[in-house]
Amino acid sequence: MKAITTIPPGGGVKLSQVSLENTKGVRVKTYRTGICGTDKEIAQGKLTFARPEIGSSLVMGHEAVGIIAESVEDSTFKEGDIVVPMVRRPGGCRMCRLGRQDYCEDGDFVEAGIRGKNGFMREEFIDDPRFLVKVDNPSIRDLAVLTEPLKNVMKMEETFQFLRTRIPWYCEDSTLSCKNMYVFGTGTEGLLISIVFKSLGMNVVAVNRHPLSENVMDFLDRNRIDYLDTSSEKLDAKVKDLPMDAAIDAVGAMDVLKEITDNVSNNGIAIMFGTSGQLPSHNFDVLERIVDRNIVVVGSVDGAKNHYAEAIDFIETHGKAMQMDRIITGKYQPEELNIFTEKEKGEIKKVIAWS
Amino acid sequence: MKAITTIPPGGGVKLSQVSLENTKGVRVKTYRTGICGTDKEIAQGKLTFARPEIGSSLVMGHEAVGIIAESVEDSTFKEGDIVVPMVRRPGGCRMCRLGRQDYCEDGDFVEAGIRGKNGFMREEFIDDPRFLVKVDNPSIRDLAVLTEPLKNVMKMEETFQFLRTRIPWYCEDSTLSCKNMYVFGTGTEGLLISIVFKSLGMNVVAVNRHPLSENVMDFLDRNRIDYLDTSSEKLDAKVKDLPMDAAIDAVGAMDVLKEITDNVSNNGIAIMFGTSGQLPSHNFDVLERIVDRNIVVVGSVDGAKNHYAEAIDFIETHGKAMQMDRIITGKYQPEELNIFTEKEKGEIKKVIAWS
Amino acid sequence: MKAITTIPPGGGVKLSQVSLENTKGVRVKTYRTGICGTDKEIAQGKLTFARPEIGSSLVMGHEAVGIIAESVEDSTFKEGDIVVPMVRRPGGCRMCRLGRQDYCEDGDFVEAGIRGKNGFMREEFIDDPRFLVKVDNPSIRDLAVLTEPLKNVMKMEETFQFLRTRIPWYCEDSTLSCKNMYVFGTGTEGLLISIVFKSLGMNVVAVNRHPLSENVMDFLDRNRIDYLDTSSEKLDAKVKDLPMDAAIDAVGAMDVLKEITDNVSNNGIAIMFGTSGQLPSHNFDVLERIVDRNIVVVGSVDGAKNHYAEAIDFIETHGKAMQMDRIITGKYQPEELNIFTEKEKGEIKKVIAWS
Amino acid sequence: MKAITTIPPGGGVKLSQVSLENTKGVRVKTYRTGICGTDKEIAQGKLTFARPEIGSSLVMGHEAVGIIAESVEDSTFKEGDIVVPMVRRPGGCRMCRLGRQDYCEDGDFVEAGIRGKNGFMREEFIDDPRFLVKVDNPSIRDLAVLTEPLKNVMKMEETFQFLRTRIPWYCEDSTLSCKNMYVFGTGTEGLLISIVFKSLGMNVVAVNRHPLSENVMDFLDRNRIDYLDTSSEKLDAKVKDLPMDAAIDAVGAMDVLKEITDNVSNNGIAIMFGTSGQLPSHNFDVLERIVDRNIVVVGSVDGAKNHYAEAIDFIETHGKAMQMDRIITGKYQPEELNIFTEKEKGEIKKVIAWS
Repeated sequence: MKAITTIPPGGGVKLSQVSLENTKGVRVKTYRTGICGTDKEIAQGKLTFARPEIGSSLVMGHEAVGIIAESVEDSTFKEGDIVVPMVRRPGGCRMCRLGRQDYCEDGDFVEAGIRGKNGFMREEFIDDPRFLVKVDNPSIRDLAVLTEPLKNVMKMEETFQFLRTRIPWYCEDSTLSCKNMYVFGTGTEGLLISIVFKSLGMNVVAVNRHPLSENVMDFLDRNRIDYLDTSSEKLDAKVKDLPMDAAIDAVGAMDVLKEITDNVSNNGIAIMFGTSGQLPSHNFDVLERIVDRNIVVVGSVDGAKNHYAEAIDFIETHGKAMQMDRIITGKYQPEELNIFTEKEKGEIKKVIAWS
Repeated sequence: MKAITTIPPGGGVKLSQVSLENTKGVRVKTYRTGICGTDKEIAQGKLTFARPEIGSSLVMGHEAVGIIAESVEDSTFKEGDIVVPMVRRPGGCRMCRLGRQDYCEDGDFVEAGIRGKNGFMREEFIDDPRFLVKVDNPSIRDLAVLTEPLKNVMKMEETFQFLRTRIPWYCEDSTLSCKNMYVFGTGTEGLLISIVFKSLGMNVVAVNRHPLSENVMDFLDRNRIDYLDTSSEKLDAKVKDLPMDAAIDAVGAMDVLKEITDNVSNNGIAIMFGTSGQLPSHNFDVLERIVDRNIVVVGSVDGAKNHYAEAIDFIETHGKAMQMDRIITGKYQPEELNIFTEKEKGEIKKVIAWS
Repeated sequence: MKAITTIPPGGGVKLSQVSLENTKGVRVKTYRTGICGTDKEIAQGKLTFARPEIGSSLVMGHEAVGIIAESVEDSTFKEGDIVVPMVRRPGGCRMCRLGRQDYCEDGDFVEAGIRGKNGFMREEFIDDPRFLVKVDNPSIRDLAVLTEPLKNVMKMEETFQFLRTRIPWYCEDSTLSCKNMYVFGTGTEGLLISIVFKSLGMNVVAVNRHPLSENVMDFLDRNRIDYLDTSSEKLDAKVKDLPMDAAIDAVGAMDVLKEITDNVSNNGIAIMFGTSGQLPSHNFDVLERIVDRNIVVVGSVDGAKNHYAEAIDFIETHGKAMQMDRIITGKYQPEELNIFTEKEKGEIKKVIAWS
Repeated sequence: MKAITTIPPGGGVKLSQVSLENTKGVRVKTYRTGICGTDKEIAQGKLTFARPEIGSSLVMGHEAVGIIAESVEDSTFKEGDIVVPMVRRPGGCRMCRLGRQDYCEDGDFVEAGIRGKNGFMREEFIDDPRFLVKVDNPSIRDLAVLTEPLKNVMKMEETFQFLRTRIPWYCEDSTLSCKNMYVFGTGTEGLLISIVFKSLGMNVVAVNRHPLSENVMDFLDRNRIDYLDTSSEKLDAKVKDLPMDAAIDAVGAMDVLKEITDNVSNNGIAIMFGTSGQLPSHNFDVLERIVDRNIVVVGSVDGAKNHYAEAIDFIETHGKAMQMDRIITGKYQPEELNIFTEKEKGEIKKVIAWS
């Protein structure tokens, strides 16, 4: 069958012929796969930790939706069920054994399409039913390709809800309606973060360093999310009007960490998700305000099965009202490999249709 | 009466004659005051936010023990009671009204001897009984001068205990005996942090960049605290043997934050307390490991009245066994103002005896 | 204007003519009010703590949806906005000042339509905008009458999420899919509890002591909620198959507490909401299993503004899919006062249409 | 060697000759064992779940201190080390595997001297070093026999500290000094609970139904713990003066649960530890106040290794000042078996000296 493969960590991407793995498990027909920055980095040979499952070639793709083609006896899945496969598969550490491989203690895990396990950019795959998450509602099968990036946001929300119990971190009326969340980055992750925290009742300000394409601006407008273009308005001026009570970074640059620690309010919460690999460009000190203002900065990576389930639930309950279909800006065939290198105007999320 | 005063933020330090404030409250005779880095910075004019209560002169001193000379009618204090006065006095924000001015939301507080309120380096002062914390056991009256720096550590412990509930952050036998805490800095705060976390059953490694004086080494040895001198042994080599599960910084330099984020374990906890004002010396990226390993970095400043009470309790219950008297390395008269500028060999904490 | 009034605590219910209160605030036209067990108890003179606002007569009704008829200058509301008014209004205790009057420390609050404040069963009322919660989506204006009972469930969920952090209380795959929640009671609150915890991914078993009417069974079936009729199948037999990991009581009888403590699993969570005033019928001991199995039993009453907001969000996002309209089984005119005393076959929630 | 044995669950107690188990492990010479209510219940055949390890006879005793007589190669223990053995040994459930067998999910554990494992009332025993907790300070070797009952209190404190994060459950000055804790029961557990919560800075009121013997009154007085004898002063009268903010029960009777729920403050915390097996004597309703006041009632049983370690630390740091030696009211020889049946005036804790 067809598969999109790479030779990690060197990179490259080509359409190959591969055969189905010879393992026990459920057979899944791939329906859609998404492409994200990590895929492009793998293709460009920039992701140093990318590695094959066996041999030298790796099937790419970690964002996927599939349809059960053949189940196994002791599984609750049946033919036709729609599923999202999990990316990270647990090792043997305590957190992995607790089902929380997103908090893996020793790094002894594999990630489909990234390191040590073939991904989902192929016509079919065999998988362990424990790592497939069911999508009950067939009407969201196209949107469900956003489950994987969205599960990261669900873990960020878990982290946020935990950290805000440090003190009574809410408004005088018990809600979050007086609290401003700044979200750095306006790619798929940034937009998903923005709508999830908007759905919690916060004021959300999306931040980037340039004007946005019309479709992205439109998406933000429809979801009543504010936008700050720091090439035309200074962050600290904005913060004077709308204090930065919390911030989430989906960019991954040290100067964003600096901007956050310089501007976040006392007892502020900063969740760091982005790791773009951009080099730090300046000498600076993020420490003094962190200390004097009891700021908490926390990394959040990946998500557990409960976050996949919450992501699917979010898509089902908010997908239509929040117009999440606008995030998917292009649908391609497996043969169109140029999508790994070219970036289109207004591009947010590109997906590949496998069936 | 005699008082040690400065002209903030310009600095300087001199022995002045001042009169008792004309306010209602308990009259406290000062017994001991301690000198810390902040006092020296004020004296050197380096603390830009230092400011007087009224006029241009500020009575210095925020670490103190006193003895009630005259109480007021509705107070539970009586003559002869030993008390530690609190440094930070609340403003009107919600956290201040909750008694947690250490989490002040708007910075609208004053700090005795630092900003906006005269300190305790004088023979007597009048104070509001709400901000005096009782020392029940007269045998610790000399050690009680360590209450103020120790209350910071008690808040760090509160923060640590909170953050480790994010996941089951403990050993297979439910204790912390397998967990290593690295403490950066070996001044008074560093040593107090080391013994408090040692008392929780952790392995503690104190870290600094030079050999320690004999008395400090001796103090660590007696408390079974390991020492790493990074001028002779590399941090990453040490961490290979003894993973850095958590870290607390009492130094306040960006390269320590870098050393911590480069070395702390997955799901690690880093508490930042130091703010030395040292300039960052290198370009570097602390972000990627924070994200990929779910590391939490949190600032912790000051402490609330409960932390003062816990500090006094710690001194009473652990002071003797942990030989905390070894931390006080010099006792001086108010006239000996050179102690603000000179540093003696083996110096840890210098105190001034007022009565 | 017309109003439904009672003479508390004696009871009775009649259609009266009342005039609008002469206070500042937003004028709200009542759209719908719901009737619940508490209203019936007030009407029957069984609620001993019911009391008027002034004089001897109380306007009834605490479950309501209204439409802004006239706003005030400094409010964000405008004419035509749909709102749900809050029932409990804060007193002066710390929790009330934190916006959490549901955790009032001293009982010094009033509750509209119940104690000390006129309710919403009248054509119009003037209210403080702080206690009105906006319904953004006009298509749920009929369902929004369920906001008030549903906000109680949102607080129960908050309590549940808090209590389960005591230990890692989740399945091996990190979700709640292996956990069974037993919900005692199948009235409006019982059904709302069942669907909210179902939406968290738990298996929900509704429990009552008799066969259910067809429409209630149908509602449960459509939401894939199991039903146990203890008049035909024993609870302990059911629990052998499906362990009772957690339980919520919406009945309010001591023998339900006994049934729960006899059957809930180790480390189980029991949330008590019902207070029917039913007399205890047997001698029994609920204590030993509570202790030996670390069971936590917690009362949960009322909800804060954030819970109203979450309830509205739940109705908007789950109302249609979970067919919440089936809970409203009758719509009446203010004149039909027999609805306070008669109970119809298949009755769940009756509402009064005011406009 | 000599051992005190019983035939569970029938009961009886005799001095037998037994031989050392033939297993690998550390050989421990028993120094002291304590006798508690559970031992007496076993002796009287009242503990239905008591069962032997093998055969029909069980070596009694779960409260112990011993001295290492012979270590094993891979252990950190050496000859002469003082140790407290743990009672409950883990099974295979998730909480047991996390080192938290006190939260065992399936009851598949054994408890030394109680069920399925021989206890420590014998001259020597072989044990797995994982279940021995070191006592560093030889001067507390006699008091260390209180570690086992005290570890239960340390878990209660953990539970209390967890539950009070539900809301900001502390005084206006951030401490617990305004909070009253009522402790029901004045046996060993009751007294240990009283002093531990006193050490947290709370006002503690011990409660029982009769006048106390002079030595117990004296112990309470010296620790500034209030006493309420409900045979001469009504609980509700006392509570009017000193609100019952929290309560812990070490009695185990349903009417105590009733007294607590009738009197505990809004948002109160009630920790249930006692399980005396006393029959309930009245019909009553504990439910309504639990609900209306958001009261949390939680069972707390056993404790994990960290609680043993904390208990030893508490004895070392507070034992002398709190005069814990007064709790041990009698020291006996193994031959004096009448101590299992007779109760002496002023008796609190009786211990058996084995060496």
